[in-house]
Amino acid sequence: MSKQTLNDDTRGKLEHVSTATICTALYKRGLRNQFIQDVHPLNPALGNMVGPAFTLRYIPSREDLNPVSVFENRAHPQRKAVEECPAGAVFVIDSRKNPRAASAGSILVARLMKRGVAGIVTDGGFRDAAQIAKLHIPAYHNRPSAPTNLTVHQALDINVPIGCGDAPVFPDDVVVGDGDGVAIIPAHMAAEIADEAVEMTAFEDFVTEMVMEGRSILGLYPPTDDRTREDFVAWRAKHRR
Amino acid sequence: MSKQTLNDDTRGKLEHVSTATICTALYKRGLRNQFIQDVHPLNPALGNMVGPAFTLRYIPSREDLNPVSVFENRAHPQRKAVEECPAGAVFVIDSRKNPRAASAGSILVARLMKRGVAGIVTDGGFRDAAQIAKLHIPAYHNRPSAPTNLTVHQALDINVPIGCGDAPVFPDDVVVGDGDGVAIIPAHMAAEIADEAVEMTAFEDFVTEMVMEGRSILGLYPPTDDRTREDFVAWRAKHRR
Amino acid sequence: MSKQTLNDDTRGKLEHVSTATICTALYKRGLRNQFIQDVHPLNPALGNMVGPAFTLRYIPSREDLNPVSVFENRAHPQRKAVEECPAGAVFVIDSRKNPRAASAGSILVARLMKRGVAGIVTDGGFRDAAQIAKLHIPAYHNRPSAPTNLTVHQALDINVPIGCGDAPVFPDDVVVGDGDGVAIIPAHMAAEIADEAVEMTAFEDFVTEMVMEGRSILGLYPPTDDRTREDFVAWRAKHRR
Amino acid sequence: MSKQTLNDDTRGKLEHVSTATICTALYKRGLRNQFIQDVHPLNPALGNMVGPAFTLRYIPSREDLNPVSVFENRAHPQRKAVEECPAGAVFVIDSRKNPRAASAGSILVARLMKRGVAGIVTDGGFRDAAQIAKLHIPAYHNRPSAPTNLTVHQALDINVPIGCGDAPVFPDDVVVGDGDGVAIIPAHMAAEIADEAVEMTAFEDFVTEMVMEGRSILGLYPPTDDRTREDFVAWRAKHRR
Amino acid sequence: MSKQTLNDDTRGKLEHVSTATICTALYKRGLRNQFIQDVHPLNPALGNMVGPAFTLRYIPSREDLNPVSVFENRAHPQRKAVEECPAGAVFVIDSRKNPRAASAGSILVARLMKRGVAGIVTDGGFRDAAQIAKLHIPAYHNRPSAPTNLTVHQALDINVPIGCGDAPVFPDDVVVGDGDGVAIIPAHMAAEIADEAVEMTAFEDFVTEMVMEGRSILGLYPPTDDRTREDFVAWRAKHRR
Amino acid sequence: MSKQTLNDDTRGKLEHVSTATICTALYKRGLRNQFIQDVHPLNPALGNMVGPAFTLRYIPSREDLNPVSVFENRAHPQRKAVEECPAGAVFVIDSRKNPRAASAGSILVARLMKRGVAGIVTDGGFRDAAQIAKLHIPAYHNRPSAPTNLTVHQALDINVPIGCGDAPVFPDDVVVGDGDGVAIIPAHMAAEIADEAVEMTAFEDFVTEMVMEGRSILGLYPPTDDRTREDFVAWRAKHRR
Repeated sequence: MSKQTLNDDTRGKLEHVSTATICTALYKRGLRNQFIQDVHPLNPALGNMVGPAFTLRYIPSREDLNPVSVFENRAHPQRKAVEECPAGAVFVIDSRKNPRAASAGSILVARLMKRGVAGIVTDGGFRDAAQIAKLHIPAYHNRPSAPTNLTVHQALDINVPIGCGDAPVFPDDVVVGDGDGVAIIPAHMAAEIADEAVEMTAFEDFVTEMVMEGRSILGLYPPTDDRTREDFVAWRAKHRR
Repeated sequence: MSKQTLNDDTRGKLEHVSTATICTALYKRGLRNQFIQDVHPLNPALGNMVGPAFTLRYIPSREDLNPVSVFENRAHPQRKAVEECPAGAVFVIDSRKNPRAASAGSILVARLMKRGVAGIVTDGGFRDAAQIAKLHIPAYHNRPSAPTNLTVHQALDINVPIGCGDAPVFPDDVVVGDGDGVAIIPAHMAAEIADEAVEMTAFEDFVTEMVMEGRSILGLYPPTDDRTREDFVAWRAKHRR
Repeated sequence: MSKQTLNDDTRGKLEHVSTATICTALYKRGLRNQFIQDVHPLNPALGNMVGPAFTLRYIPSREDLNPVSVFENRAHPQRKAVEECPAGAVFVIDSRKNPRAASAGSILVARLMKRGVAGIVTDGGFRDAAQIAKLHIPAYHNRPSAPTNLTVHQALDINVPIGCGDAPVFPDDVVVGDGDGVAIIPAHMAAEIADEAVEMTAFEDFVTEMVMEGRSILGLYPPTDDRTREDFVAWRAKHRR
Repeated sequence: MSKQTLNDDTRGKLEHVSTATICTALYKRGLRNQFIQDVHPLNPALGNMVGPAFTLRYIPSREDLNPVSVFENRAHPQRKAVEECPAGAVFVIDSRKNPRAASAGSILVARLMKRGVAGIVTDGGFRDAAQIAKLHIPAYHNRPSAPTNLTVHQALDINVPIGCGDAPVFPDDVVVGDGDGVAIIPAHMAAEIADEAVEMTAFEDFVTEMVMEGRSILGLYPPTDDRTREDFVAWRAKHRR
Repeated sequence: MSKQTLNDDTRGKLEHVSTATICTALYKRGLRNQFIQDVHPLNPALGNMVGPAFTLRYIPSREDLNPVSVFENRAHPQRKAVEECPAGAVFVIDSRKNPRAASAGSILVARLMKRGVAGIVTDGGFRDAAQIAKLHIPAYHNRPSAPTNLTVHQALDINVPIGCGDAPVFPDDVVVGDGDGVAIIPAHMAAEIADEAVEMTAFEDFVTEMVMEGRSILGLYPPTDDRTREDFVAWRAKHRR
Repeated sequence: MSKQTLNDDTRGKLEHVSTATICTALYKRGLRNQFIQDVHPLNPALGNMVGPAFTLRYIPSREDLNPVSVFENRAHPQRKAVEECPAGAVFVIDSRKNPRAASAGSILVARLMKRGVAGIVTDGGFRDAAQIAKLHIPAYHNRPSAPTNLTVHQALDINVPIGCGDAPVFPDDVVVGDGDGVAIIPAHMAAEIADEAVEMTAFEDFVTEMVMEGRSILGLYPPTDDRTREDFVAWRAKHRR
């Protein structure tokens, strides 16, 4: 299913554009709320995280339903979701913006990495954050949190539409993470946004180069001067972009 | 389905005990998180709200999915839920604690009232709050909020487990509201909690009477003095409680 | 100046529609952020507050610039603004959503009332709130706050564009307040919104009447059934609306 | 002990001045942080609350130390404090600004009332709020809260310096509450502040009268015009204040 | 006194287990609230912080009591506490979760380091944070904060029970910090928790190794499969753990 | 204009003192609120940021006024301000403490750097944060934020008094940033504060050296012992400070 929404071409493009550029492209289409608020990368050196969303929904935990022994049940939604998340997908958790207990820890994240999952995001917090930061899988959270998830979270639903950091996330929406955080692209417009973002990135790289050479941003960014548009054409030719 | 979890006897008892008493009874059983935080009654004079929970789940809205025209769809979850909520139930909305747009307005609340629904709760806000305050159906929210729900909410699921004001709410859990706010009793312990709360209320009424007569709370509340226990027996006999 | 943006006809219409209805009309035009968040009426019985915005901007106070003696200066922006606000306007204060000290007190609000000002709004708090609640001028704030405004606020600008409760407010925008709170209508669309809101209100009143008679909201609200549209035509004729 | 800090004369004066006026008098002396933030009266019709502070300090509760049975211990600090708080004092609770569980309920507040205590304040919440609202003792809190205090609070210290709503409160500081909330006057300056506040109140009453007659606040408030000062002298003579 | 609660054996064990593991061990015993919320290590490379708690309590500052000259008093609680905190203890400050002014700066933290103190924690902020980050003593705070503590804090009590980041902290409770933050172990169960945490850590290390080899978490974590338990026995033998 | 308020001598001094020291010097003069709350350096290795403030004020954005095309207008306040900010100044943005959309991105910050601007501060967030972190210009924000500023911000005023992180900032006030954050020195006292801070820094360096040698802080910090004062004289002579 994920393949349909995110082919290799689109994935490849999204690996080299920023969430800032994506958010502007979405803004032009009237979508203002696709950035997951207040999550941060644990391992920012890994490069962009890209993949279709696979979701997990938590609700507040009730004490009688959440002894430590619940994990002995192989059908427990948190553990089940970790084993079912498709390779190449991004595992996105609705923790109700509550980082007072962990959304997951290093063992589950390591398992996701081994299974080929493309990344993990929670609007809560991870435990064992220093260990996760060393794993080769992008991970985003609000802040570290040592208490077991059972303390405030109860895993309930797998791969349903959720909220994460005030953004709507539907299964198979395309998730992109970089140093700024995580953006959600509605599945049906992923290819279109990727194309536009690649174009915008070329222009922004050109602008950055011009700015570093001392040019004013007026007339350059946006390119209201004819000269800017001409220079950009030349720059693209020169850089084959 | 609701009948099983909340028979008339239990409902009747819960109509005359306080959420404070219920929370203490739940606390004795290890449940510390069953009070919906920070919601307030719009029409506190109506007396206790009691009924099994019927839930609606919102996620953050996405602009392209939420033009005003969505309500023309008879299957829109918000409108559908209003027509499907059983008489006698309490309609509980997970608005992600976000009162920046309305969870519902006076027309929908009036329809619930006419359908015999026992009350409505959101951890967001209602629009037309002054009108709702005049309806004969208990309603609880965080604060008034005029913007249409589409502004920040998208109705998604009907009658699934949700969070509301940081409390877990499962369908058919028993919802009780009074002047302090709203407590959630797990369905399977509703009868037991109701019985205990009635007993506790008798004792608290006795204690209040003694305190108003000038007695110290030491030995009285809790009843560690023999005299207190004896006096209570006499008081119960006298008041036939 | 205000007369241009708000003629008597428009003002009259806006006195009889709700902020909920106005917010929906604005939403249809792509404006999602025109409701001042988290302010409440001190005297809700007074009816709608309507008038063009006249603004005052506070910044955080600096102790050396804000001894009590600053008010001896007749040019102090807070006092000057109170004397300059046009009759019929609504005085809107940008208090940076900080109610830890007062935005104004009962004497200034009484003066505004006597000068014929149509209302006052702050996203902070008023002192002497109980006295203000007795005055015949609509007033909206976040919560009562006794400390003098100098404690955290410094009045700076009169009648510039501001933010109030996260909403943008430009001078002469039309301000409408009711029990739910306060909505801001951009000046140039006030007449159009008023007209549409009057129409919507007629329909909502019809719908409310139908709902109270027991009709389902499906097909009625919105009016996707032919019967609804026909009944509404008849209702309008009967009620001359 | 309390008698020293608050004699009948000072108490009497403080019963007829506002917390707004008191805060301004404190501000003139460099005290900017003596207003308890975000607490509200449950029974505002009762008039000013005045008395020396008697304090109770809560810390976060630990589950193993807080079974319901702790109240069987007559030395439990919450119950002990209720019986020890002097008549005429105000009972002030440091609940760490956490209203997620109750600071106290109607039985304890009723006992305080019967013992002649002058009022009760918490920066958390009370349970049985509707009952407390009917008692003849001023009570201030953040919001109603049904869960037993044991859920998040553990009573620890009696009559030590505390913080309440971000204000410092030392035992015997003079506490004054009105419709706006609660101000704390350092014990040693209570008489001085009371005297000044009475003077300020006379002037404010005069100003209010002038404003209601249509006079501008410029030159009047503050009284920079000679005429204002002369009129005030005449007004005082006439009203014997 | 501290020696009783934390012997070298227990200390040694706690230096090599995580706060996540400790929180789970506490959770099994019904303690859900022993993690200090939202504090972060300034120098995470130093390894675990372990020691019995020695506490300092701040209340909100009152301006007249807090001129800079208060520090000239050798009995000032902040300075006194720094000189009295036992070597090997962890200095824990109740800053009421307020980082708007500093809880301490680099000079005091350096002094604690020289005195052999095992670490320092505040739920507020430190000034000179970059300097503290270079000291060889673990330090945890919410965020850097340059203003002198007198701006909002007044040191009051030494070594009394406090709240820190919403967790209860009693003197001699055992404090453990790592990359995730800081956990508080009640003094009487420190040895027991340490023992269990060492066992749990061995199992978690085994699980991590298995996961990195590609094994599924189902049946492995928790060890519901016989094979897991057998493999773990073998792993322990091999690794002599 | 800026030259008057910040000469090279003062600038040089402020480049080598901490915001903590500056805040204490300001505190001694009764200024308690000059630290911008909750902003953090993106590139802390660059050393102190020093310069007179040049400000930009945002208000909440209104959708119809903020299509992406607004930047085509060369007079757009954000772009205009970037080109007008004087070399040597610090660009300070009032983002109303809202980091949900960007205050600026790497291209604008690069342009400021090339123009010789001394630094940039927002109480919101920057997009392209990882790129900004590599530029040779100090930058401070609350957290990274990818959405274009138009999403929630509208640039309005250039170089007016603003609030930033709850601190008042007037044009030409002297802005100093270090690892702890950003302090604002009123323009007229910049030289005086710089002088005092240099003196204080010498003493603090001496104290730190003494503490690292094992001396107690009592009598040393503050220097209430004669010996301290004598040792400091000797230390200054030795270190020529």
